[in-house]
Amino acid sequence: MDMLLFELQKNSATPLYEQLYESIKEAIISTKIPLGSKLPSKRKLAQFLSISQTTVELAYGQLLAEGYISTKPRVGFFVEDLESIPLVETSVATPLSPQQQPQWRYSFHPGKVDSTHFPFTAWRKYAKDIFDVSSKELLSLGDAQGELALRTEIAHYLYQSRGITCDAAQIVIGSGTEQLLPIIMRLLGDDARFAVENPGYSAIPRIHMKQVIPIAIDDDGLRVEELANTAANVVYVTPSHQFPTGAVLSMKRRAKLLKWANAQAERYIIEDDYDSEFRYIGKPISALCGLDQNNKVIYISTFTKSLMPSLRVAYVVLPPQLVLAYRNMFNYYSCTVPRFDQHILANFMHDGHFARHLNRMRTIYRKKHDVLIESLQRYTSRVTVFGEHAGMHILIRLQHDKSEQQLKALAQAHAIEIFALSDYAFTTEQQKTPTLLLGFGDLDEQAIPQAVDMLMAAWSIKKD
Amino acid sequence: MDMLLFELQKNSATPLYEQLYESIKEAIISTKIPLGSKLPSKRKLAQFLSISQTTVELAYGQLLAEGYISTKPRVGFFVEDLESIPLVETSVATPLSPQQQPQWRYSFHPGKVDSTHFPFTAWRKYAKDIFDVSSKELLSLGDAQGELALRTEIAHYLYQSRGITCDAAQIVIGSGTEQLLPIIMRLLGDDARFAVENPGYSAIPRIHMKQVIPIAIDDDGLRVEELANTAANVVYVTPSHQFPTGAVLSMKRRAKLLKWANAQAERYIIEDDYDSEFRYIGKPISALCGLDQNNKVIYISTFTKSLMPSLRVAYVVLPPQLVLAYRNMFNYYSCTVPRFDQHILANFMHDGHFARHLNRMRTIYRKKHDVLIESLQRYTSRVTVFGEHAGMHILIRLQHDKSEQQLKALAQAHAIEIFALSDYAFTTEQQKTPTLLLGFGDLDEQAIPQAVDMLMAAWSIKKD
Repeated sequence: MDMLLFELQKNSATPLYEQLYESIKEAIISTKIPLGSKLPSKRKLAQFLSISQTTVELAYGQLLAEGYISTKPRVGFFVEDLESIPLVETSVATPLSPQQQPQWRYSFHPGKVDSTHFPFTAWRKYAKDIFDVSSKELLSLGDAQGELALRTEIAHYLYQSRGITCDAAQIVIGSGTEQLLPIIMRLLGDDARFAVENPGYSAIPRIHMKQVIPIAIDDDGLRVEELANTAANVVYVTPSHQFPTGAVLSMKRRAKLLKWANAQAERYIIEDDYDSEFRYIGKPISALCGLDQNNKVIYISTFTKSLMPSLRVAYVVLPPQLVLAYRNMFNYYSCTVPRFDQHILANFMHDGHFARHLNRMRTIYRKKHDVLIESLQRYTSRVTVFGEHAGMHILIRLQHDKSEQQLKALAQAHAIEIFALSDYAFTTEQQKTPTLLLGFGDLDEQAIPQAVDMLMAAWSIKKD
Repeated sequence: MDMLLFELQKNSATPLYEQLYESIKEAIISTKIPLGSKLPSKRKLAQFLSISQTTVELAYGQLLAEGYISTKPRVGFFVEDLESIPLVETSVATPLSPQQQPQWRYSFHPGKVDSTHFPFTAWRKYAKDIFDVSSKELLSLGDAQGELALRTEIAHYLYQSRGITCDAAQIVIGSGTEQLLPIIMRLLGDDARFAVENPGYSAIPRIHMKQVIPIAIDDDGLRVEELANTAANVVYVTPSHQFPTGAVLSMKRRAKLLKWANAQAERYIIEDDYDSEFRYIGKPISALCGLDQNNKVIYISTFTKSLMPSLRVAYVVLPPQLVLAYRNMFNYYSCTVPRFDQHILANFMHDGHFARHLNRMRTIYRKKHDVLIESLQRYTSRVTVFGEHAGMHILIRLQHDKSEQQLKALAQAHAIEIFALSDYAFTTEQQKTPTLLLGFGDLDEQAIPQAVDMLMAAWSIKKD
């Protein structure tokens, strides 16, 4: 074969061997060097190009490693007989536009939290302290269940604030309810038949991709009698503050629900304690899990509402028998929450910042809640409030000839984000009175009256 | 009924209403107050206990909210006829022992990374800067695909270092390969038939819970001809540095594999570019994805080896047609990686720290790699090294009458952690020559010769 004529730049930032490798590779792909042909020996090519033999060796080594050439001992280097890569049949490119985020003037989204009162100074201090060489052992993978320090703080919090007695060993930390639910569902087995609150919010149908059994909600929460008449053996409930109706599961129903679970070995209750931290009348309602004496409640909660949605820390408290099953089934697993973040949160909680933050935010949310209710009192002839006194949204029933979805669309047309009760329905029966959710978490307290007036104007509802 | 005789502590830290609530609740549960009985009016009880009527109102309100009592308008408050909560049938408590972590003298774990050279000072600076009130919009949920800033940096890195041209819009960020794979598998549909490298490491069998098709590996990587003879339509490969054998998928096979994928619309290649950053001979081998002109390669990688395992940041590059499918199917989804962490990493990359860190670590790992090889050269009569020159582990074939698993157990008995090739086999055929993995990521360079000597002593292998 002809000698290889490559132009190498000796003063380039690209090492000589890399220039040589790229040149030969290109020559092979473009078949300037015929397939199967023998390359010059390292010594000869080095002499010809006036470069060191090491440079040629490195380039040939790279070509060998990537399979462009092969070597026969004591014979030499040969260009591999590559099958042609299908370079020409390029499919039509699909243009990707960035996803559009609508711009709202006011958002009544029930999932939004206040973003102006986060204790950045305290948080930053703990971040500064943890990102240090003294924490270098936190670089490697930690406990699959999550850091013991954080689990200990959570167990303490649950005891103090939610009436739950549990051991840190029962807690599994994950990036969200959405990430923990598949684990719980694996533990409960493939044959589990899930019931959910209706209306309600649960990721189970999405994860499960099988039919779930919807159970109606009334003013006392889940209709436990209905549940007992189904084939369900696992029920997903939000007893402290039903989402979205705001109902509190009555004591009578709690007792009945625990009794239902206790009647059969494979029955379980998944308690999602979403949104339970903020109650503006009386003290927080204790968790159902705290009443459970028979290891029937799987308790799940997050820091989404109490700290921030973007933190991505949720946790589940497993009954002891499921902890053992978890350790057997998920022994390969790695906790999805960064260890450094877990320790920032644990230290923040340990020093009392979390409790203080909750108390502070309770006052802030109570004010927003009160202003919202007050603003709505100018429209009582057509607007009835319910599901108030807790969480970050209330509900309104409207005297209106338009449907919920029409009302939602009208609001959106006025750049107001709002959700309808039927958005959370698992069945499609017609709601008699249009009912909408008004989240107030991230609304500016001062702006609430105007937001309400704008919303009512969008619906052509006049002041009393 | 009798008057309620409660002892309330006026100077206690517990508010009076809460003491009253607790006392009445306890009286109801213990049936000291008969079920169905009428409670005294708020006025009367307030007078009797010499407390304000508001205090009684708050206590009654809490009992009402939790369903212990009910109210009949203009009649009064009544104790609810609760079904007895099954308090006595407490199941036998399962004692939970904390999970034991073995203490190793030396760990040859292939997944361990160096923990003494992480650039904490730079990282801390970015953490300090981002946890600030000026970043308050990062408290709410961000883009489901991950922060645009981080995706932009990743796209840039992939172009510079892995030969991949992609748009930030094609990238989805998640907490790990384990968390991203279920998303990919949903996109590929329920009917996908997965092939995996054998031996190999893939979470697909665990997630899929169906049969996968094992395809043999030889010195040129995956045997693509075998793949073509199966019913598989998706293959999971590690072309740059096959795990665990260290083989590089040859150019010929790469071309063949891309051709295979291109032959049918539903065929896809999942390229796991695990461990590709560190190559100690020549330059890093370009990704298969960079050769793909037909949107057939789903590229997946992580910062586990290049930064730290506990960071929990992985990403996938989806072909454009799958990006559109992703946006439709996962419109409810929230990115599992905390937004603040994403921005710390993005800023760290943007200012060149990541590239510098990689270069620095390449030198450190190369030294460890060289010392390990050198230490093994004292045992060449019975020990053959292969799969070297890249990543964080090498392999050794042993002349030994014991099996791989026996050798592994012997090492462990000497407090040395080690893994066998058969640990990663999807089939159970007998390995002829015992083959073990020697990870060197977190071994102290100075300690490597001694670690090797101890290991050989455990196996009764004498120096040449």
